[in-house]
Amino acid sequence: MPIMTVELFKGRTREQKRELVQALTDTYVRVMGGRPDSVTIILSDVAKEDWAVAGELMADKYPD
Amino acid sequence: MPIMTVELFKGRTREQKRELVQALTDTYVRVMGGRPDSVTIILSDVAKEDWAVAGELMADKYPD
Amino acid sequence: MPIMTVELFKGRTREQKRELVQALTDTYVRVMGGRPDSVTIILSDVAKEDWAVAGELMADKYPD
Amino acid sequence: MPIMTVELFKGRTREQKRELVQALTDTYVRVMGGRPDSVTIILSDVAKEDWAVAGELMADKYPD
Amino acid sequence: MPIMTVELFKGRTREQKRELVQALTDTYVRVMGGRPDSVTIILSDVAKEDWAVAGELMADKYPD
Amino acid sequence: MPIMTVELFKGRTREQKRELVQALTDTYVRVMGGRPDSVTIILSDVAKEDWAVAGELMADKYPD
Repeated sequence: MPIMTVELFKGRTREQKRELVQALTDTYVRVMGGRPDSVTIILSDVAKEDWAVAGELMADKYPD
Repeated sequence: MPIMTVELFKGRTREQKRELVQALTDTYVRVMGGRPDSVTIILSDVAKEDWAVAGELMADKYPD
Repeated sequence: MPIMTVELFKGRTREQKRELVQALTDTYVRVMGGRPDSVTIILSDVAKEDWAVAGELMADKYPD
Repeated sequence: MPIMTVELFKGRTREQKRELVQALTDTYVRVMGGRPDSVTIILSDVAKEDWAVAGELMADKYPD
Repeated sequence: MPIMTVELFKGRTREQKRELVQALTDTYVRVMGGRPDSVTIILSDVAKEDWAVAGELMADKYPD
Repeated sequence: MPIMTVELFKGRTREQKRELVQALTDTYVRVMGGRPDSVTIILSDVAKEDWAVAGELMADKYPD
């Protein structure tokens, strides 16, 4: 009955998201047991101007 | 002094949100006591392509 | 398919939690529609020394 | 640079947690690319009395 | 190795965000020790119609 | 009206937490404006066995 929240950079395609949630769910069930339909995943897209490491916005460190 | 975060599908109207936060606040105060102004609620709209159950994106399971 | 997370002060009884999750679920379904079994609630107990308002720990403002 | 938060039932062993974070990290990197050291995972143990579905505490539905 | 998540009203400029993450990181390191590059900050913009206090949407209390 | 959540390693003293929430609140208000009593902070203690980077539990990387 896990809930996984994944904060990741904005801009992933539908296809990448589809593959990611499938793979994370499979991995969880393989390691921890349980049924796939007990696994909920929420993807949270974060813009580079909303993510900082060492006091620096990722939008400044990695401008488009 | 509770903080309630509600992750729900994107697309609710302002009127639905208005009614929801009013009703959840009333419910919390009725059951737990305290004052309404101590209750904070944050609504977090989640797109169907960012929510998965059983490894399947809700955008694939319930296409528009 | 909402997920509600409720951050509240540690120390609630099992009976209070039981009543709270029942009431919040009923309220959500009444206002927004959907089925009760689509509603997940996670209660997150927060100690008074881990919660601050205006820069003051609740453990200092409301000592036991 | 993803952050994965996994809310799961309390009571997993250190060994299960070790295996889980390794496998989720490998899976993320395999699917999405990037370096393993960019992946942070936080496990959040949730007691059965703090988790409810359909208005019922898991502690009531699945008593020990 | 802290992760700070800051939920704040939508509408801040890039410059305000830049200054905020720099200042919060400096403050954390000054008080708690550690290295700045261990501090991750995620800013989460919340619309006024998604934030409620006392059962009232901020969009209703503070209309634009 | 920001809410700051700080995930940090378990084991900080009350005095460190007191100093941290005071300093973060002051910093927020200095940079962003607003009143200190609009700032809520929640500290979330994370055990080293619940935090992983690069697929390795911090409890394994930094044993006590």
